[in-house]
Amino acid sequence: MQLRIPGPTPLPDEVLQAMKRQMINHRGPQFAEMFHEVTATLKEMFQTKGDLLILTGSGTGGMEASIVNTLSPGDKVLSLSNGAFGERFADIAEAFGAQVERLRFEWGRAVDPQAVRQALSHDTGIKAVLVTHNETSTGVTNDLASISAVVREFEKLLLVDAISSLGAIDLPVDAWGCDVVITGSQKAWMAPPGLAMVSVSERAWQAHAQARMPRCYWDFARAKRFLEKGQTPWTPALSTIYALAAALELLQREGLKNIVARHARVGAKAREGVKSLGLSLFPEDSYASNTVTAVRAPEGLDVKRLLKSLREEYNTILAGGQQRLEGKIFRIGHLGYVNEDDIEAVLEALRVALPQAGFNG
Amino acid sequence: MQLRIPGPTPLPDEVLQAMKRQMINHRGPQFAEMFHEVTATLKEMFQTKGDLLILTGSGTGGMEASIVNTLSPGDKVLSLSNGAFGERFADIAEAFGAQVERLRFEWGRAVDPQAVRQALSHDTGIKAVLVTHNETSTGVTNDLASISAVVREFEKLLLVDAISSLGAIDLPVDAWGCDVVITGSQKAWMAPPGLAMVSVSERAWQAHAQARMPRCYWDFARAKRFLEKGQTPWTPALSTIYALAAALELLQREGLKNIVARHARVGAKAREGVKSLGLSLFPEDSYASNTVTAVRAPEGLDVKRLLKSLREEYNTILAGGQQRLEGKIFRIGHLGYVNEDDIEAVLEALRVALPQAGFNG
Repeated sequence: MQLRIPGPTPLPDEVLQAMKRQMINHRGPQFAEMFHEVTATLKEMFQTKGDLLILTGSGTGGMEASIVNTLSPGDKVLSLSNGAFGERFADIAEAFGAQVERLRFEWGRAVDPQAVRQALSHDTGIKAVLVTHNETSTGVTNDLASISAVVREFEKLLLVDAISSLGAIDLPVDAWGCDVVITGSQKAWMAPPGLAMVSVSERAWQAHAQARMPRCYWDFARAKRFLEKGQTPWTPALSTIYALAAALELLQREGLKNIVARHARVGAKAREGVKSLGLSLFPEDSYASNTVTAVRAPEGLDVKRLLKSLREEYNTILAGGQQRLEGKIFRIGHLGYVNEDDIEAVLEALRVALPQAGFNG
Repeated sequence: MQLRIPGPTPLPDEVLQAMKRQMINHRGPQFAEMFHEVTATLKEMFQTKGDLLILTGSGTGGMEASIVNTLSPGDKVLSLSNGAFGERFADIAEAFGAQVERLRFEWGRAVDPQAVRQALSHDTGIKAVLVTHNETSTGVTNDLASISAVVREFEKLLLVDAISSLGAIDLPVDAWGCDVVITGSQKAWMAPPGLAMVSVSERAWQAHAQARMPRCYWDFARAKRFLEKGQTPWTPALSTIYALAAALELLQREGLKNIVARHARVGAKAREGVKSLGLSLFPEDSYASNTVTAVRAPEGLDVKRLLKSLREEYNTILAGGQQRLEGKIFRIGHLGYVNEDDIEAVLEALRVALPQAGFNG
């Protein structure tokens, strides 16, 4: 089975085996040791000396956490949005009472740092900027290095949804001055879903001290206080932490540089392969993501039929388009436990399935 | 290893094996089938024909969800509190802007339904009542049948923390007219932590339609809309759902009545055993819980030392007291995958460890 959606991703056997470990006391010394170790390794992968918190919930929970911990109702927020997940980030901020200005870019195009500069010059009341590093819905990786540089110029708080990038695409959290960065266990991390991992900068803590959005479950201060004794405020997803610990061991062995290089190779192979089948990418080429490839559905192709036949006849699971992109694109996930052979297998399946779904190249 | 804390609990081998199943597409037909089945079985165990939602998060997340989905800032709420978890429920409501009136009972004693009636007669502005069915911190099971009858009399919304009772202690959700009932996967359910399961009554949906507390991740309406197509709004803790599915199969085979009877036997055995060692219960006898036994630390007993020696020398993990009960009690968890032999083993370990920790009966 080739599960090639942008998360959950297939898990290495070592990780699956770790999942069947018996329960332990989440307030005991064994847990504390493991939790400290996982936290320390994640900090290396985040390239941060700031705080790193592990929350039980999905990535979207981490996004909600980043907002309610740093903002107050009425705060002005600039949302940089070029896809479904950018919109989601803005929606969450709005749900909690932020005054959200949405700087929107065409889906499939990247966020333009110059436009961000203009927006920030224009409106000095903005407190925080929300950005999606890798927009999973369109297969675009935004130029976070440039965006964060602009945000730093204006000394705004920068909240980054790096759910489908971190651990696969380079994101030096401290060097780029990102204040809260969120990822999810089921993405690059080769672990099952159920954990959100977030980094918190000193500036984010200062914002936290002023932030009046209501929160309890997601509260960073509680998480930090408990982390000091190797615990979590609420019972954590223990087995998923076992899995994450096992996966991090593999990732550390490979090394972050090699992991990033592998994703670059795999991404390039996916893009070239797709083009060689006569298809074209949905995003602009220069921002195409190394973790997910979005393919434009050509005239005549029935995406639903394609995905069904890939699944039922070729053991290959790809993702469709979300929201307004439903039926207009399909997506190949290639993050986490993936190498060139996996992409080759997907391309072979596509080669036979595409004509059956109405596309003849 | 005897892990006898009130959750996480030891897992049966069938459940551990289920955890190592490979990832699948959480938006595909296989997931939908499993998710519908798990939901249907949970509804039987909740004894409800209302809605049943599975949220990725810990039980406390489910508590937060119950509040933000049914209340508005400024709403008056009556909290019935006789322990740390009752206080937590009230704290969450307060964090989100509810006006909380705390009707407190001595820790170790049960909530008095008569006092609830008085409080509700006295203050007609109350919109909802928060209650802990089984107060894990003190080992008390409140008389929810009587409490819910009073709350129904006054037609208030009833939110029930049943995290450590449901699936082990009888709680007929519909018959007792409970509006939102919360439990957690790592308690009676013989699954790892990471999922909160909540029932939602028709009255709770009516409250939801008016409720203005901010929410996104925990929103019941989104969860219900996605459940209709066998999905969750955000990526769910997939492996934990595998485990829950496997555990529910075992639980269904045993049957709810037998499960409740087993917990009653095990609870009685724990209480008798503890007394036979010359110890006394912390809670009043008639409300002592069938899922957790809280034992008063007698004069001379060093609880910390006891727990350490049980852990290091006798492979037995018990829980200490929380907050103001630290050092004053210890607790034996007996819920989920547990039978009389497990209690026997704990009692044997206590018999030798107690004198070493300063208690000579």
